[in-house]
Amino acid sequence: MGSDQTSATTRSAEPVYRRIADAMRARIESGELAQGDQLPPIRALAADLGVNRDTVSLAYDALRTEGLVEGEVGRGTFVRASVRAEPMAATARLQLAEAAETLLRFEGARPRLAGGQDLVALHTLVPEPALYPASAFRRALNKVLDETGPELLMYGGARGDPGLRAVLAARLRADRIGVSPDEVVLCHGASQGISLALRLFAGSGDAIAVEVPTYGGVLSTLTALGLRAEPVTMQSDGDGGRAPDLDEVDRTLARPDVKAFYTIPTFHNPLGTTTPLEHRRRLLALAARHGKPLIEDAFAMDLRYEGQPVPSLAALDESGLVVQLCSFSKSLFPGARAGAVIARGRAVEALTALKRATDLSDSMPLQAALAEFVSNGAYDRHLVKLRRELRLRRDALLEALEHHMPEGTAWTRPEGGYQLWVDLPDDPFDFDTRDLLADAARAGVTFQPGAAFLPEGGPSRGLRLTVAQADAAAIECGVEALGRALRARFAQDPTARQAAAVQL
Amino acid sequence: MGSDQTSATTRSAEPVYRRIADAMRARIESGELAQGDQLPPIRALAADLGVNRDTVSLAYDALRTEGLVEGEVGRGTFVRASVRAEPMAATARLQLAEAAETLLRFEGARPRLAGGQDLVALHTLVPEPALYPASAFRRALNKVLDETGPELLMYGGARGDPGLRAVLAARLRADRIGVSPDEVVLCHGASQGISLALRLFAGSGDAIAVEVPTYGGVLSTLTALGLRAEPVTMQSDGDGGRAPDLDEVDRTLARPDVKAFYTIPTFHNPLGTTTPLEHRRRLLALAARHGKPLIEDAFAMDLRYEGQPVPSLAALDESGLVVQLCSFSKSLFPGARAGAVIARGRAVEALTALKRATDLSDSMPLQAALAEFVSNGAYDRHLVKLRRELRLRRDALLEALEHHMPEGTAWTRPEGGYQLWVDLPDDPFDFDTRDLLADAARAGVTFQPGAAFLPEGGPSRGLRLTVAQADAAAIECGVEALGRALRARFAQDPTARQAAAVQL
Repeated sequence: MGSDQTSATTRSAEPVYRRIADAMRARIESGELAQGDQLPPIRALAADLGVNRDTVSLAYDALRTEGLVEGEVGRGTFVRASVRAEPMAATARLQLAEAAETLLRFEGARPRLAGGQDLVALHTLVPEPALYPASAFRRALNKVLDETGPELLMYGGARGDPGLRAVLAARLRADRIGVSPDEVVLCHGASQGISLALRLFAGSGDAIAVEVPTYGGVLSTLTALGLRAEPVTMQSDGDGGRAPDLDEVDRTLARPDVKAFYTIPTFHNPLGTTTPLEHRRRLLALAARHGKPLIEDAFAMDLRYEGQPVPSLAALDESGLVVQLCSFSKSLFPGARAGAVIARGRAVEALTALKRATDLSDSMPLQAALAEFVSNGAYDRHLVKLRRELRLRRDALLEALEHHMPEGTAWTRPEGGYQLWVDLPDDPFDFDTRDLLADAARAGVTFQPGAAFLPEGGPSRGLRLTVAQADAAAIECGVEALGRALRARFAQDPTARQAAAVQL
Repeated sequence: MGSDQTSATTRSAEPVYRRIADAMRARIESGELAQGDQLPPIRALAADLGVNRDTVSLAYDALRTEGLVEGEVGRGTFVRASVRAEPMAATARLQLAEAAETLLRFEGARPRLAGGQDLVALHTLVPEPALYPASAFRRALNKVLDETGPELLMYGGARGDPGLRAVLAARLRADRIGVSPDEVVLCHGASQGISLALRLFAGSGDAIAVEVPTYGGVLSTLTALGLRAEPVTMQSDGDGGRAPDLDEVDRTLARPDVKAFYTIPTFHNPLGTTTPLEHRRRLLALAARHGKPLIEDAFAMDLRYEGQPVPSLAALDESGLVVQLCSFSKSLFPGARAGAVIARGRAVEALTALKRATDLSDSMPLQAALAEFVSNGAYDRHLVKLRRELRLRRDALLEALEHHMPEGTAWTRPEGGYQLWVDLPDDPFDFDTRDLLADAARAGVTFQPGAAFLPEGGPSRGLRLTVAQADAAAIECGVEALGRALRARFAQDPTARQAAAVQL
C-alpha cells in the first residue's frame, strides 16, 4: 500500500479499520485501482499490516457500503464501476440529495459488528423472541379482526387507532402525564416518532442538542434530515449516575440555531442511567427560559424493575415544553411497530399533518390488536414476567463484570431496561473500543462500541452491553470472554499495535 | 363584518369559504374578536352574506384547523387563546419549523368535504371494505405467524421482508421490469414511498416537477419537506387522453433547482388517463438528456380491466433513471400498508438508509402475510373479481354521466383504476368546483373538487369522481344528484352569487 502515508503516520482519532478503508479509497479514487481490479485478499493484507483479518474485513465492508467495491466473502473484493469510470451510465449520473449523500457516508463510517451464530450477543437492544407474548397477541389480533371485520383494513386516521390512543392516554395519566387521546399521535415505532418530532421543530441547517453519548439512531435521523447534532456532555455524578451538564444545556439552548434538546432521561441509551428529579426540574426551567422544546425519548417505558419511579419530563411539564416519545418495541416487541408522540396544542396539529404527509396512516389491525392486548390485561401480565427476567439478567451482568473486568473498569447500574455502559480503564496508549470488536468476536462475544453513540464517531473507551438476547448463563460466558479479550489486548505491546497504522 | 373590504371587493381566485375565513381571521388578528368571543352563528352569517350555511361551515372548519377558533357543531364557535393573547404560555411560544407551519397553512386551505352517512361517496380513492378479501388474508397472516413463530415480531431489515421483496420482484419482472429483490425497498404504502423518493433527490428549497393536476398527497408531502412544486401542464390530446406537455418538461428539467419529475403515467390520479407508449419513450429521452430522475407513481398497479397494457416507465428505462413506487393499497386494501420503491444502484443504498433513518423497519407479519397471500394465488384470484367489479362500476359511471351531465361537460374514460375526471362547461362567470361541494352534499353526493389537485389550490372547473365506495346503482343515484346540483347552480343568477363576495 504505502500510497497514503501522510494521513496514517500520525495516530489519528480514526480506528484502524477506518484508516485501512481510507487508504484503499484513496487508491481507488486516484485510479491506482481501476474498475474490476481485485483488492488484496483479506488474509494477505491482514498479514502484511499485522492486523486481524476481521479488521480488514470491516474496512472492506465500509467500502462496500459506500458502493466503491463489491464481492462476496471468500470470493474476492473488486472495485465497482465508479462515477468517473463510467460516464455514460445515467444511473451513476443521477444526483442524490445532499442529505442522502451525507447519510450514506455517515452510515458507511458507523462501526460494523462482526456478528455470528456462536457469539453471545451483548450488543443489541432488540429483545429476543423467546420473551414475546406472541400467542396472546395473536389472540388479540384475531379477536379484533373478528369483531371489526374488513373495515379494520382501511386507512386509519393520521393519529392512529382511537382505541390505542385512549388506552395509552389512560396509562400516561396513571403516570401523572395529563394527556388526552387527542394529544397522542401514534406512529411507526419511537423511531418514526423521532423523525416526526425533529421535523416539527427543525429544518435543514438547524441544530438539535443531543446528549453525548446518545442513541445512534437519532444521529442517523438527524443526518438524513440535514440537521446538525449539538453535543451536550453527560456528566458523571461520581456515583454511577449521569445526567446532561446543565450549564452546557443552558449555553446550547441559548443559540438561535439550536431548536430543541433530544434527551433520554430514564434508562438512558446507551448509559442505562436515570436522571434525578431535581435535575429534571432544573432542565425544564432552562427549557422554559429559552422557550425551546425538550424531546423526551421514553423508549424504555414500563421497564423499571427496581427503585422508585422518577416522574417523566412530560409529567413535570406545566407549560407544554415537552414532546414525549413512547414505544412498545422494548416493553413488548418491535414487530407491532407501535410508538407514539405526545404533544400539546398546535404541536399536535402539526405532528398530525406531518404524519399524514409522510405515510397517511399506520396499520390499524396491529394498533387495534395492541389496544385489546393492553385493555384485557395481557400487557401488564407480560410486564411482570419481563421485568423479573430483566432483573435476573442485570444481576448476572453486574456480577460477571465484577468477576471478569480488568481493574479500573467502571460501569453503570441500571434500574430498568436492557443496557448498561462500561468505561474501560485508562491505558498508556490511545484506545478505541471499535478496535476491540474483532478480538471480542474471536473470544465469543459482541458488544456495541462507544463510537456508535457519538456524533463525531469516536474514538471512545466506552462500550454498551445489553441483556436483550442473552440469559443469565450466556451473560456470564459473554462477559468472561470480553474480559479475556480485553486483558489480552491490554497485555499487548503498544508499539506493536501501532505498527499497522504506520505501515498504512 | 365589512372590516376587510379591500381583499374581497375584487373577485379573487379564492373560493367563497376561503374569503369568509380570511375576513374572520383578520378580525381575530386585529383584536376585534378577542379570546373567548363567539363568532357569528353559522345560520345568521350565512343569511347575512347570502351564502349557503355549508360555505360558512367550511370557513369555520378552516379556522379551526389553523387553531384560531374552537367549538363543536351546534354549540357555537369561539376564538381560542392566541399567541398574543397569552404570552405566558410556553406552549404557544414554541416555535415550529417553517415547513411545519407552512404545512399547517397548506392543509388549512385544502378543500374540506362535507361528508355524511347518507351521501353517495364519489370523492374517495379508498376502496370499500366489501371489496377486501379479508378472510383469505387473515388465513395467510395466521399461517405465517404459525410457521415463523415469534421471530416474525422482531424488527425486519430496513428493506423489508425478503419473501415479499422476492414475490414483488418476480411480478415486476413479468411486467418487463428487470429488477432483483435487492432493488425493492418495501415501505409504508406508496405514500411513504413518495416521501422517501423525494428526499432521495431533493433537499429544502429544491423543486420537484409535478403534473397539473396531480395527486394531492404529493403536494402535502412536498410542503412538509420544504420542497416546491414546479407545475407541468397535463395536455389534452382532444380525444379524452392527457399527458404531460413535453416541452414544459424539457424546460422545467433544464432548471438546476428542479431535481426530479413526479409522474403518474398509468391511471393518472386524478385524471384516470394513461399516457401512450411513444410519449413515455420521449419522456425518458428528456430525462436522460437532463440527467434527472423520473419518480413513477404506479399506485394503481394490477388494476387494468380493459385495453392493452402500456409498459411502465420503469420497464422502458434502460439507464436507471426511473424510481418506481408500487402499492397494494388500491389493488388489495390500504391496511396492509404495503408499498415499495424500486430503484437501482446507489439510489437503492440511499433509499435503504433513508428508510432506516425514518422508522427502522416495517411490520414483518403484515409483509410476510402478503407474500403468502400473493404466492398462494389468492391475490390474483382477488384481482380477477376486483377488475370485473371496477369495470362494471366504470361503465355505470360513464353511462350516468351521459344521462345527467349538462351539455358541454367532458370527462375521461379510464381503462383501469377507480377514478375519472370531469371538466364542467364554460360559463359566463368564474366558477370553482369547491363552491359546488355544499350544493352537491345537499343533493346527496360527494366529489373531490379540482382545486385539491392543484399546487396553487385553484380555482378549477374540474372535479374527480371515483367508483371506490359506490356500486353501479349508487353511482347512478350519485351522478343524477350531481347533475341536479350542477344545473341548479348554472341556472342561478351570477350577480346574486357574487353578492357574498362584495359584502365581505
